[in-house]
Amino acid sequence: MNKHQLISIIEQMTLEEKIAQLTQLASPFFEGSDHEGQITGPMATLGIKEEDIRNSGSVLGTSGAKEVIRIQQAHLNKNRLGIPLLFMADVIHGYKTIFPIPLAIGCSWDLELAEKSAEIAAKEAAISGIHVTFAPMVDLVRDPRWGRVMESTGEDPYLNSQFARAFVRGFQGTNLKNDLNRVAACVKHFAAYGAPEGGRDYNTVNMSERQLRESYLSAYKAALDEGCEMVMTSFNTVDGIPATGNKRLIRNLLRGEWEFDGVLISDWGAVKELIPHGVAENESEAAYKAIQAGVDIEMMSSCYVKNLKQLVENGSIDETLIDGAVFRILSLKDKLGLFDNPYRGADEKLEKEIVLCNEHRQIAHKLATKSCVLLKNEAILPLQPKQRVALIGPFAQNGDILGPWSWLGSKEDTIQLYDGIKLKVKSSDIFVAKGCEIETGTEEQLDEALTIAHQADVIILALGESSEMSGEAGSRADIRLPEVQLQLISRLKELRKPMIAVLFNGRPLDLHGVIDQVDAVLEAWYPGTEGGGAIADLLYGDANPSGRLTMSFPYSVGQVPVYYNYFNTGRPKDAPDAQERYVSQYLDIPNEPLFPFGFGLSYTTFSYSEATLSSDYLTPEQPIQVSVQVTNSGEIAGEEVIQLYIRDVVGEVVRPIKELKAFHKIMLHPGETKTVTFTLTEEQLRYYHSDLQFKSDAGEFIAYIGPNSKEGLALMFKLVK
Amino acid sequence: MNKHQLISIIEQMTLEEKIAQLTQLASPFFEGSDHEGQITGPMATLGIKEEDIRNSGSVLGTSGAKEVIRIQQAHLNKNRLGIPLLFMADVIHGYKTIFPIPLAIGCSWDLELAEKSAEIAAKEAAISGIHVTFAPMVDLVRDPRWGRVMESTGEDPYLNSQFARAFVRGFQGTNLKNDLNRVAACVKHFAAYGAPEGGRDYNTVNMSERQLRESYLSAYKAALDEGCEMVMTSFNTVDGIPATGNKRLIRNLLRGEWEFDGVLISDWGAVKELIPHGVAENESEAAYKAIQAGVDIEMMSSCYVKNLKQLVENGSIDETLIDGAVFRILSLKDKLGLFDNPYRGADEKLEKEIVLCNEHRQIAHKLATKSCVLLKNEAILPLQPKQRVALIGPFAQNGDILGPWSWLGSKEDTIQLYDGIKLKVKSSDIFVAKGCEIETGTEEQLDEALTIAHQADVIILALGESSEMSGEAGSRADIRLPEVQLQLISRLKELRKPMIAVLFNGRPLDLHGVIDQVDAVLEAWYPGTEGGGAIADLLYGDANPSGRLTMSFPYSVGQVPVYYNYFNTGRPKDAPDAQERYVSQYLDIPNEPLFPFGFGLSYTTFSYSEATLSSDYLTPEQPIQVSVQVTNSGEIAGEEVIQLYIRDVVGEVVRPIKELKAFHKIMLHPGETKTVTFTLTEEQLRYYHSDLQFKSDAGEFIAYIGPNSKEGLALMFKLVK
Repeated sequence: MNKHQLISIIEQMTLEEKIAQLTQLASPFFEGSDHEGQITGPMATLGIKEEDIRNSGSVLGTSGAKEVIRIQQAHLNKNRLGIPLLFMADVIHGYKTIFPIPLAIGCSWDLELAEKSAEIAAKEAAISGIHVTFAPMVDLVRDPRWGRVMESTGEDPYLNSQFARAFVRGFQGTNLKNDLNRVAACVKHFAAYGAPEGGRDYNTVNMSERQLRESYLSAYKAALDEGCEMVMTSFNTVDGIPATGNKRLIRNLLRGEWEFDGVLISDWGAVKELIPHGVAENESEAAYKAIQAGVDIEMMSSCYVKNLKQLVENGSIDETLIDGAVFRILSLKDKLGLFDNPYRGADEKLEKEIVLCNEHRQIAHKLATKSCVLLKNEAILPLQPKQRVALIGPFAQNGDILGPWSWLGSKEDTIQLYDGIKLKVKSSDIFVAKGCEIETGTEEQLDEALTIAHQADVIILALGESSEMSGEAGSRADIRLPEVQLQLISRLKELRKPMIAVLFNGRPLDLHGVIDQVDAVLEAWYPGTEGGGAIADLLYGDANPSGRLTMSFPYSVGQVPVYYNYFNTGRPKDAPDAQERYVSQYLDIPNEPLFPFGFGLSYTTFSYSEATLSSDYLTPEQPIQVSVQVTNSGEIAGEEVIQLYIRDVVGEVVRPIKELKAFHKIMLHPGETKTVTFTLTEEQLRYYHSDLQFKSDAGEFIAYIGPNSKEGLALMFKLVK
Repeated sequence: MNKHQLISIIEQMTLEEKIAQLTQLASPFFEGSDHEGQITGPMATLGIKEEDIRNSGSVLGTSGAKEVIRIQQAHLNKNRLGIPLLFMADVIHGYKTIFPIPLAIGCSWDLELAEKSAEIAAKEAAISGIHVTFAPMVDLVRDPRWGRVMESTGEDPYLNSQFARAFVRGFQGTNLKNDLNRVAACVKHFAAYGAPEGGRDYNTVNMSERQLRESYLSAYKAALDEGCEMVMTSFNTVDGIPATGNKRLIRNLLRGEWEFDGVLISDWGAVKELIPHGVAENESEAAYKAIQAGVDIEMMSSCYVKNLKQLVENGSIDETLIDGAVFRILSLKDKLGLFDNPYRGADEKLEKEIVLCNEHRQIAHKLATKSCVLLKNEAILPLQPKQRVALIGPFAQNGDILGPWSWLGSKEDTIQLYDGIKLKVKSSDIFVAKGCEIETGTEEQLDEALTIAHQADVIILALGESSEMSGEAGSRADIRLPEVQLQLISRLKELRKPMIAVLFNGRPLDLHGVIDQVDAVLEAWYPGTEGGGAIADLLYGDANPSGRLTMSFPYSVGQVPVYYNYFNTGRPKDAPDAQERYVSQYLDIPNEPLFPFGFGLSYTTFSYSEATLSSDYLTPEQPIQVSVQVTNSGEIAGEEVIQLYIRDVVGEVVRPIKELKAFHKIMLHPGETKTVTFTLTEEQLRYYHSDLQFKSDAGEFIAYIGPNSKEGLALMFKLVK
């Protein structure tokens, strides 16, 4: 359809019909839904009229082709102008084939596999009738108390941007109209949802516009540069104004400066939440502020549908605002080919074949092996198949390793850790016990664990957080493992047997009580459907750990926020002439995190040498090459993530101590050496100045090239302009 | 001297002489100092020339009239134009008569006594030769990890502003030239030093300009409105630029918008720290940025004296910048009368009489009784003199209760808790033991404590932090009492005797392990020279606790920052229709602090009734009166702090859930009722809008009138414009 045809549809629409397009309701509201009429709780108070549902534009959270087809059919039977519904859902890290949580995918540093995971998620979703996924979530995160860090790829603007692009490519492909195996992506949460005060979900966010631009906005922008079709607002305030009613943020920056002309949707109920936030007196004012700001679709509240008509009629808002929103929504429907084929990819038969197929599971397995991060290994891993193993802990035989946002994933389809280890070891050599529940335990459970541990050569502890302990509204003030699990460790420790902890969790944890007690720690995150098998491969050396942290592990919660790309103070603790007392430090803990950004061990070792620059001078016209030789100096093949950081020594504003600018993940055979070369351009040296100009300054820089954000070879160069 | 005379002096000065006026050095650099020539450590590397010292303008940190007179004499003998030196020092909460730390003074809510304490500090300092004190520190603080919270009056902009004014009045009086018992005040640290990231001292500060104005700037402004002569820069960055080189902050806002024409001094070494901050390449650029920003005096680094001349000569800066700084410095010297009387109040004889005199000690005693906050009392306090008491803990017999910033205070002059209790109880009825050191302990110490506890009717625990554990560079990631003290409590708890904890510390603590174990908790802070006597008065009912917290006590460090005047979210936990999961909360702890702002118990009880408004409508022309009746419903006389908060229900930007607008501290006899009336004006309802306009909005407000920030009677009113 061309623009004129879309406009002609809009011209035929009544004001009520237009406004109904701007409302998104959950599937129970719709005829044909599996849950039709199950409208309870807050949904029951929305006050939605039958007519609004008949005219509405999109549906939230369906499951399966059959339901979608039924709803769409019923809808088209009733909709006066035959405008098809858009079906949207949270397909975050897989549809039914569940991949590791995004924070784990980040730790793979593998953009290709990340893209592939999104492609598979899109395929399963599209076949199941979904048109739009509310992903990727690309919020920059620095506070592990916040439960939704699991949904982000971490603390780095550049890395998050790369993953944002990879996910968008994977979800959308290159031609949404023709490629029925893809879905439109919706980048979220615009903006800075990842910085809630105190790490408490939905809490206020405050930072300067410069910091917002410097750190927080780039990943959203990257997703849009990759063609992401939709944007979702965030729940938080941005400098005192909730994002969903923030004209400066949406109308001026997103739509104006960035020229985004796609659909903007509120997060669940966020338009109405302008009232408790205290910037709107009532639903009418909430609707007014949201539409003025530029929100096209109101998700799961009814301020628009109940108030926009009157606001137009009394002249408070111009109908063209509504027309613009409708145009963007219809354009997206058209891009997805829905006017021609309202059922799009929905296909019950294919759904049975494709969803959770072997090929998808294999990719999930591969990505899980690459997402786990080996944090400690005192010559105990990999294990030998002949060792008798006691597998102990609440995650030993537990399918709850899919993590939050895996609502269509099934524990029954999931490879548990015990399943995985059974493939490696004779069944007579594995003993398994729970030891405790996640947050509670009994003496009997502990005794059983001690009993089996006695019989084993090595103890594998499967510990962690339940998936409810992170994710949305899953903030924790104490980020250690639950006390009962720490006690389990210390009781087992008394046996003086080798112990390996495998951790299932959604956030960086304070690992005191774990890291100091055991011989090895593998951070498995929530590894998804194939998790147990992937972890077993790593534990038994059938795969070599290659994950690297993308979010710092704090020394303790009292150190939060801690992140690698911090700003030097005037009194750095590590300065050569630093005093003992009057430096920026804690009296009781180090400034450094327990494990830094970029960190992860392998079963082999890598050495870095011959770091060189193609020139000591970089100019806007003449980039430089930064090279290093990396050698696998160990006994087995392995992958290494070579990381390039820069430091701008003197800035107009204070610059981060290090900034990631590029990385390569390479495979090296034992004894093999590869030269890795990065190109650094003047553009990569730009930053936001105090006047918000994005530009570089001539002067001295340091390039660091190495295995993580703390180690590396340093090279000085100058930018000459 | 008039302006022309000052200008004529400047006209006679060489460029070198002018620049030397802008440098402040510590006393060891000066002939006649008690520490003359003891120039070690970083001081030795300053590269100061003899000639610069001869021409220099001010001296830091002398002690005593004799030394000041000697240095001034020697200086005037050598200084070509006979320009006297200014003597400055950190007189923070007393000179030798040490008052409670400022955070404790804040808890008194007694502006008159606070002013009196500053007046006494000024008198002792002035007689000892000091001209300027680096106080008041008025940084707004929300993070108890930061050690310098002890130096602030707390988390509220309004309360801090009131104390800022009181301290300035106390230090300066009304006529600095004639009143030789006063000193000039220097408000600090400009700006927002109280918000270092992670609570780590000197760390980066980031917030929007709106938040800076809304919360952080008002107390500095209040001090200046009260006539404060000087301002000190802060160590931190303000939106990426260190305050000391921040032209927007100093030149534009402080000097431009606020029209401050007094002397601005850097904090210790802060000009040179522009280099490690990464905004200056070398000392010359640091000097350039600081003088351009508007820093008049460089404290304890030598960027000015080594570089300004060349910067003038090569045209980088205009000499008028230097002339302006010199003019402000000479003006201050003139205001203090130094051109006529270079020794000013310095008087060895008076010093011996006045410093630490009885009258001063009495005020210190009174202020200490009013600064302690009773946090818990399960019908155990006040104690009876006939009860046998075991006084146990590292603060039982310890004069280290003066707190940080009491460098001239002496432990030997201090009333320890044991001294105080001895005045209340027969000596045969007091048993005393250390129990443990502050951070370590032995079995013998513990045994001794248990032994004496057995003999007693009641145990008084004297616990806390050493003064090194807070104050400058005293950040702690763990804000509980040291483990050994918690163990002492739990061992003594086994005796099942009544226990009272008296806490000596410089920050709000996580009191788990204390509050749940003992029958009463008295937060004594660092109460100063008369601390032991004041606490004994409170414990034995010779004074009734009337202190109220001015900084929230967090539930745990994982809750930080927590403060009463927070912003509602879109999903408040306490909303009537709040869901169980999807609200802003922690899974493991409450949102509320352990003890809120404004909280404190008394030995009597107060009831609030008859809250009324003079009108339901407030207009710019017509303020309203808010009244309440407060009754002492208990058995003994006591003081209550009646607190008035407002909430602006709907704002253009999100408004705090409550904002303190006024308070009265009143004394009530048993059964007595008083009506307390506050006036609320339109001006008090103004706030910074998103465009930084400071104005009010018509609409609904709630006034809360009550005993603390969580409790109170609510009244609705409307602002009509």
